[in-house]
Amino acid sequence: MSDPAPTRFRLDVAYDGTDFRGWSRQPGLRTVQGVLEEALATVLRRVEPLPSLVVAGRTDAGVHAARQVAHVDLNAEHLAALRSQRGSGRLSVPERLASRLRGILASTTDVVVRSVREAPPGFDARFSAAWRRYEYRIADRFEARDPLQRSRTLWHPAVLDEDAMQESALAMLGLHDFAAYCKPRPEATTIRTLQDFRWTRDRDGLLTAEVRADAFCHSMVRSLVGASVAVGEGRLPPERPAELLATDTRSSEFLVLPAKGLTLMEVAYPPDGDLAARAVETRARRAAAEPEAAGPAVVDAPQLG
Amino acid sequence: MSDPAPTRFRLDVAYDGTDFRGWSRQPGLRTVQGVLEEALATVLRRVEPLPSLVVAGRTDAGVHAARQVAHVDLNAEHLAALRSQRGSGRLSVPERLASRLRGILASTTDVVVRSVREAPPGFDARFSAAWRRYEYRIADRFEARDPLQRSRTLWHPAVLDEDAMQESALAMLGLHDFAAYCKPRPEATTIRTLQDFRWTRDRDGLLTAEVRADAFCHSMVRSLVGASVAVGEGRLPPERPAELLATDTRSSEFLVLPAKGLTLMEVAYPPDGDLAARAVETRARRAAAEPEAAGPAVVDAPQLG
Repeated sequence: MSDPAPTRFRLDVAYDGTDFRGWSRQPGLRTVQGVLEEALATVLRRVEPLPSLVVAGRTDAGVHAARQVAHVDLNAEHLAALRSQRGSGRLSVPERLASRLRGILASTTDVVVRSVREAPPGFDARFSAAWRRYEYRIADRFEARDPLQRSRTLWHPAVLDEDAMQESALAMLGLHDFAAYCKPRPEATTIRTLQDFRWTRDRDGLLTAEVRADAFCHSMVRSLVGASVAVGEGRLPPERPAELLATDTRSSEFLVLPAKGLTLMEVAYPPDGDLAARAVETRARRAAAEPEAAGPAVVDAPQLG
Repeated sequence: MSDPAPTRFRLDVAYDGTDFRGWSRQPGLRTVQGVLEEALATVLRRVEPLPSLVVAGRTDAGVHAARQVAHVDLNAEHLAALRSQRGSGRLSVPERLASRLRGILASTTDVVVRSVREAPPGFDARFSAAWRRYEYRIADRFEARDPLQRSRTLWHPAVLDEDAMQESALAMLGLHDFAAYCKPRPEATTIRTLQDFRWTRDRDGLLTAEVRADAFCHSMVRSLVGASVAVGEGRLPPERPAELLATDTRSSEFLVLPAKGLTLMEVAYPPDGDLAARAVETRARRAAAEPEAAGPAVVDAPQLG
C-alpha cells in the first residue's frame, strides 16, 4: 500500500491527577496516556500501528492539568476506520474523533477531552511549545482551606511569609542551570529559562505560585516551590534558593512538595507560521546540551513532578 | 447555680456537600450539622445542654458551601469545660474553640471551620442575615468540563442559549411570591425578594448563575436555574419563568436541577449596630406571613435545595 504522510491531530485535555499514576503509560498502572491511548485504539478499531500520543508536559503521579496538549498521528488506515463508523455523518474528521473518544470515556470523569482539531503544519505538542505554565496552591491558614478545592491544594500547617517567598522567587528568574532543582536524568540538560515565578495571596488567604518556563526538568516546579516554602517558614534565608543555582547537584536544603498542589495550567505555542522553526530550534538546543537527544525515541519529554 | 446570659459564637464553615445528607441533623445520617455538633460536644466534654447550631442556610443533600455561617450559644459551664483543657493557655476563647474543633476534625477534609469569633450583640446567624448568595455552575460543552471542578459543576449534554437565559432571569427580579419555585411547606411563606439573578459565561465556556435574595424557600435556587435551563434549551419561551410567578402552586414546566451544581457562596449581615433590629424585622415579617413562625422552635430555617 502507499504510505502518504499521516494526519496530525492536536488534543487538548484536562485531568484530576488524584487517581492517575501520572501521564506516561506504564504497564498495569492507570495513567492518563494509557487511558487516552486505549480509548483511541478502540475508536480506531485497533488498526495497527496503535496510536501513540506525544505530550507537552509529562506530569508526575498526582499532578493535575487544566490544559494539557498532546498530538497523535493517524495514517490513511486509521482514518478509514474512523470514517467507516455510522452515526456521525455530517461531522468533520476532528469532530468525529472527539465525539467517539468522548463516547468511550463517557463514564470517566477525571479526564476530559476538551477539544480535538487538525494540527497546523509544523505543529509538535512537545517541541513546538513556547512555554508551559503551572500553578501551585497552598492553604497555610484555616480561612483558606476550601473543601471544594482540596484535591488540588496543599493544606500546610503553618502560616508562611509570602513577602520573603516572593523576594526569593524573583531572584531566580532567567536562564540558569537548575541542577539543584532537578531530579537527575542521564544526559538530560537542566538548563532552563524561568520566565515567571511569583507568589500571590487572594482575599481568602490562599497562596498561589505561578511558574512559567520554556520547559521544566523533572520535579523542578515542586522543588522551586519547596525552596520557597522553606523561606516562608524561616528555615532558609530569602537569597539562598538563588544561591543554589550555582551548584550542580540536587539540593537537600528543601523538600519537593507533594504533587496534589500542582496543576499544569497552560501550554503556549508560537503563531502557526513559526511552529516548524520553533520545533527545529528546540530539538537543536536539546541536541547540543544532550548528545543523545537528537531523535525523539531516546529523549524524555519535559518532565514535571 | 446562677444562669447568666450565654455567650454567642459565630462559626464560618465550608463544605463539599457530596458526602453529606445536607446541613440538618438527621438520626443515623452524616450531615454537616451532625458532624459539627458532635465535634462541639466533644470539645465541651459533653456538658449539657449539648451545643446546638443555628445556621444561615440549611442546604439540601449534595449542596456545597464556600461560606456558610452558624452560631452557637455556650453557657458558663461550657466555657469552664473549654478553659479546663491544657495546652492552649495563651489563646482567646474563640481561638481555643477553633483550635479544639479543628483538632477533632483533623482527619475530616470535606468540612472546614474557617473561623470562630465571639458574635457581636444582636447577632443571629439566621435572622440577622441581610441576604444569601448562591452560585450554580453548568458545563454545557466539553471545552468547559473541568475534572478538578466536577464535584460542584453540572455537566449538561446540550449547549444552552445564555442570552435567552439571562433575559428570562432578569424578568424575575424583585419582590414576588415564588410559590411556583418552592417545595411547599405548611404555613411557610414563599414571598421573597430576588435581588440578583444573572448568567455569565467565562472564557472556558462555563455557565454560572449568581442568585441573591433576602432568603430562599425550599428548592428555590435549583428551581429558578431549572427554569432557565428549560429556556436555554428552547423548551420554554424566555418570558415564561416570570409569568409563572403569577401562579400559586409549584410548577412542573421545568426540572429542579441536581444539587451538585449548587454552592452557597456568601451570607451577608448588616453593620453590627443594625443586627438586632434586622433580626426583629425578619422575625416580624415571617410572623406576619407565617402564623407559627414567631418562635424559632417551630420555624424552619431558610431552606435551599
